[in-house]
Amino acid sequence: MPTTAVLLIDCPDRKGLVAAIANFLVDNYDANVLNADQHQDAALGLFFMRVEFETELPCDDAQFRALFAPLATSMNLNWKITFPARPQKVAIFVSHYLHCLADLLHRHQTGELPCELALIVSNHESARPLAEFYGVPFHFTPVTPATRQAVEVQHLELLAANNIDLIVLARYMQILSPRFVEAHPLRIINVHHSFLPAFTGAKPYHAAFARGVKLIGATSHYVTEELDEGPIIEQDVTRVAQSDQLPDLIQKGRDLERLVLSRGVRWHLAHRILSYANKTVIFS
Amino acid sequence: MPTTAVLLIDCPDRKGLVAAIANFLVDNYDANVLNADQHQDAALGLFFMRVEFETELPCDDAQFRALFAPLATSMNLNWKITFPARPQKVAIFVSHYLHCLADLLHRHQTGELPCELALIVSNHESARPLAEFYGVPFHFTPVTPATRQAVEVQHLELLAANNIDLIVLARYMQILSPRFVEAHPLRIINVHHSFLPAFTGAKPYHAAFARGVKLIGATSHYVTEELDEGPIIEQDVTRVAQSDQLPDLIQKGRDLERLVLSRGVRWHLAHRILSYANKTVIFS
Amino acid sequence: MPTTAVLLIDCPDRKGLVAAIANFLVDNYDANVLNADQHQDAALGLFFMRVEFETELPCDDAQFRALFAPLATSMNLNWKITFPARPQKVAIFVSHYLHCLADLLHRHQTGELPCELALIVSNHESARPLAEFYGVPFHFTPVTPATRQAVEVQHLELLAANNIDLIVLARYMQILSPRFVEAHPLRIINVHHSFLPAFTGAKPYHAAFARGVKLIGATSHYVTEELDEGPIIEQDVTRVAQSDQLPDLIQKGRDLERLVLSRGVRWHLAHRILSYANKTVIFS
Amino acid sequence: MPTTAVLLIDCPDRKGLVAAIANFLVDNYDANVLNADQHQDAALGLFFMRVEFETELPCDDAQFRALFAPLATSMNLNWKITFPARPQKVAIFVSHYLHCLADLLHRHQTGELPCELALIVSNHESARPLAEFYGVPFHFTPVTPATRQAVEVQHLELLAANNIDLIVLARYMQILSPRFVEAHPLRIINVHHSFLPAFTGAKPYHAAFARGVKLIGATSHYVTEELDEGPIIEQDVTRVAQSDQLPDLIQKGRDLERLVLSRGVRWHLAHRILSYANKTVIFS
Repeated sequence: MPTTAVLLIDCPDRKGLVAAIANFLVDNYDANVLNADQHQDAALGLFFMRVEFETELPCDDAQFRALFAPLATSMNLNWKITFPARPQKVAIFVSHYLHCLADLLHRHQTGELPCELALIVSNHESARPLAEFYGVPFHFTPVTPATRQAVEVQHLELLAANNIDLIVLARYMQILSPRFVEAHPLRIINVHHSFLPAFTGAKPYHAAFARGVKLIGATSHYVTEELDEGPIIEQDVTRVAQSDQLPDLIQKGRDLERLVLSRGVRWHLAHRILSYANKTVIFS
Repeated sequence: MPTTAVLLIDCPDRKGLVAAIANFLVDNYDANVLNADQHQDAALGLFFMRVEFETELPCDDAQFRALFAPLATSMNLNWKITFPARPQKVAIFVSHYLHCLADLLHRHQTGELPCELALIVSNHESARPLAEFYGVPFHFTPVTPATRQAVEVQHLELLAANNIDLIVLARYMQILSPRFVEAHPLRIINVHHSFLPAFTGAKPYHAAFARGVKLIGATSHYVTEELDEGPIIEQDVTRVAQSDQLPDLIQKGRDLERLVLSRGVRWHLAHRILSYANKTVIFS
Repeated sequence: MPTTAVLLIDCPDRKGLVAAIANFLVDNYDANVLNADQHQDAALGLFFMRVEFETELPCDDAQFRALFAPLATSMNLNWKITFPARPQKVAIFVSHYLHCLADLLHRHQTGELPCELALIVSNHESARPLAEFYGVPFHFTPVTPATRQAVEVQHLELLAANNIDLIVLARYMQILSPRFVEAHPLRIINVHHSFLPAFTGAKPYHAAFARGVKLIGATSHYVTEELDEGPIIEQDVTRVAQSDQLPDLIQKGRDLERLVLSRGVRWHLAHRILSYANKTVIFS
Repeated sequence: MPTTAVLLIDCPDRKGLVAAIANFLVDNYDANVLNADQHQDAALGLFFMRVEFETELPCDDAQFRALFAPLATSMNLNWKITFPARPQKVAIFVSHYLHCLADLLHRHQTGELPCELALIVSNHESARPLAEFYGVPFHFTPVTPATRQAVEVQHLELLAANNIDLIVLARYMQILSPRFVEAHPLRIINVHHSFLPAFTGAKPYHAAFARGVKLIGATSHYVTEELDEGPIIEQDVTRVAQSDQLPDLIQKGRDLERLVLSRGVRWHLAHRILSYANKTVIFS
């Protein structure tokens, strides 16, 4: 059975990159390229590439690393190889708004999000029925100011014990500590219910209604130590009708949140996102 | 020949408003309602109404004011009556980017912007050929730090001498003084090349590119003393392609600027905009 | 406790309509207008109005009909009065694609679709777990060419026995007979997975992919005897990426289907839709 | 001074394509790849590639053809090489609606459409002032049923005498003969004022208004012998407001027409469009 792998590269742009990489894959793996996409950041002089290839020859992480290292070093490549055959393990954190969770669970069931949903963590009990219906282990970890630190330790242990690859904050209303964030670089995806960088912080729909914007938005992004400042993965907007009151914005916004969060998770799982300079490249 | 008038009302919401206003128009003018639209702000308890009506009976500004005053006072209405038959006089201010100007001039020529284009004012000579081609008087008023104040006086005189109703800043890159702004409340429309409130101030496309947003926008708004903080009239966005570099954003943005500015001007000319609480109501 | 009612009107446009209706509501019900919206079809000379009002005075269907009839007759009004306090009863028909069903069930649970979900009917067993999880009675009625007529009789009896107000076809892949459709005029909402009138009939995503369109869409509409030809309620589109293959279109389309169907159902339940000339008016 | 070239390829998908092409460019031209984009049609098993490269070595059409032919033959490539340094010559055909023409002329002036505007042809005199203002030779060729054939001969001679590379139909309301179309395969871009394949033929806004669609669109496409059936280049849509009457649709549609036509022309001029199976690939 052939092996499928995804190679992600970012590096200073220079002549001969594509030829060198293409030759490497042909010479070492007689590779069949399933998808390839490349981009540049002209201002920073950077080159980005994603190649998804198939090979009948032996190919695993250690072996690829050994073979590819000399070329990567000589061309100054940042790179990552992944093997989609190993399903990633995902934890979803959620509070009392369940629309994103319900959406992710249904998409997972229909095969749209190929991963193992290993955990649902919540500071409320309200998500338990959905978790049980879809057969995902549910962990109720209520948070108070006094227990915040202990709960976080518990979360870190849960994540480690389950070898979690990706944490999805599906409207999780607790702020993560720097320690937690640093432990999962580019491995936490959040949905913020505004068109970032507009309306950072709490109650963005209220702020949008007060400002009188004519479109509202939602954003999925990687979580970094700066709140709402991480690399943006996806954004979408919808028009505010003149008759819309605040509850209407909140309702319309829920649809945007579902869309941008599920797209972000799907692209992450497909290794289609590369981050640099606090931005993202989304490969097709 | 019948008279057409537009009545704009905002007031505290209360029972019987629509009946009282409708009866007034029937009883005094045997009015034929061409268009009516009403809205509420539930949070602030406000009611907004626009009625465009036609009457065969005598109806002019002074006479309407006299007849309507008692009802308006008793119901605590803020209101305005206008008569579209009198074309509004418009001045366009522009610097060296001419795409919005060219767009407005062509739309005016095709009848999409029913008004009298009385003046084009610029601190550059580059707009002169377009102004002359479309037959609009052109005023070249170069600005230096030393002449800024004198030029502003000159502008104020020009506007007054021409009885200008509306000033359109079609990518005019000079900051207006508080005195100038105060003299024209809700009579200056600007286009800002971002999705406000994101990326206020200078070089918003550069800021958007640096932040890595996935959509860029443009906004038309009334100018108030706070830069980029006035009531938003219209906004639109377009998707950033992964391959887009900064010049691509600037080019895509020009299309958004044309759209949101021309819509704002058209709606203002049709008396379809009402402003309250630093927001706008756009009537259909 | 006050009574809330929604009055929908369509009629030939003429002078004095708004005043007459507003006066009627004030004089008979001392009504507090919660929402009012009116539109015209200039080409056909028609006027459309929706008034949602509250009254402390007695107001029920029979009594309103008696009081309103003389005015309605004299002004040639088509009209309908409804009382939102009585929740409408809804049946959902579904086949093996469950994304719209799962979406409607979650929206109903969160209060976004105020109605009683009385039945889920399917020609497959696959929807049963979702129906049971959300506590909606599930009826498995497999269809073969030989049983088609008998099954339809069974459906009609089920609908009648449950006093169903609205039938939602959430990707129900069976064609309804003229008898079934005629029995439920403007009471069956379907979602078609294309931007109608493009790509009517079977496999619209395949047809869209083959034609090479740059946007795909979905449409919710009332079902009439002509397949895919009923009054359009809502449509939305999304951009096709150059890398999208047919399965990508199908996946993107599912998001559109959810959106347009749920909006259509919500607007219908709020009595915000009026149909005329095989089109719809959507009131705000 | 380096030479810049664009290589467009479509061929059956197979292993080693990218490596072979990349190696060819490195070995023969020590090429610096400025942009590369590739796509697949999985259903048809086709591969599409666009490479824009720069070389300091000698590179012209004849020489490239000679060097590349063996590889192209062995790998069964359809291909095309173009040299952007030679500006393409464009003819615009227009009737009495001038909004697309005015838009194209302004975009050309600002450098957004790098080409030589060689001709404007019209069956009306109304475009003459714009043509003269922007300095483009104007040819008034009125058409009657009796003169249609003679006028077409005149057009063909004009186009040939001016070595026209691309014909843009900017709302040209005359139907082209099969002979004319066949003479310019994939070299005529038309804008149709609907979201194709909906509302082909005459008066699409009227048809859209009558059908009650909730979004209207516009389409730019290559002209083939089947009216409105050629490969679609770009489409866009905008929402119909409930209050919109037919003239509002026509006005909103003009903005869409400008956008989709100008994008189509810009992409064609940048050799970013490849056509196969009556569809287009748009390279980034």
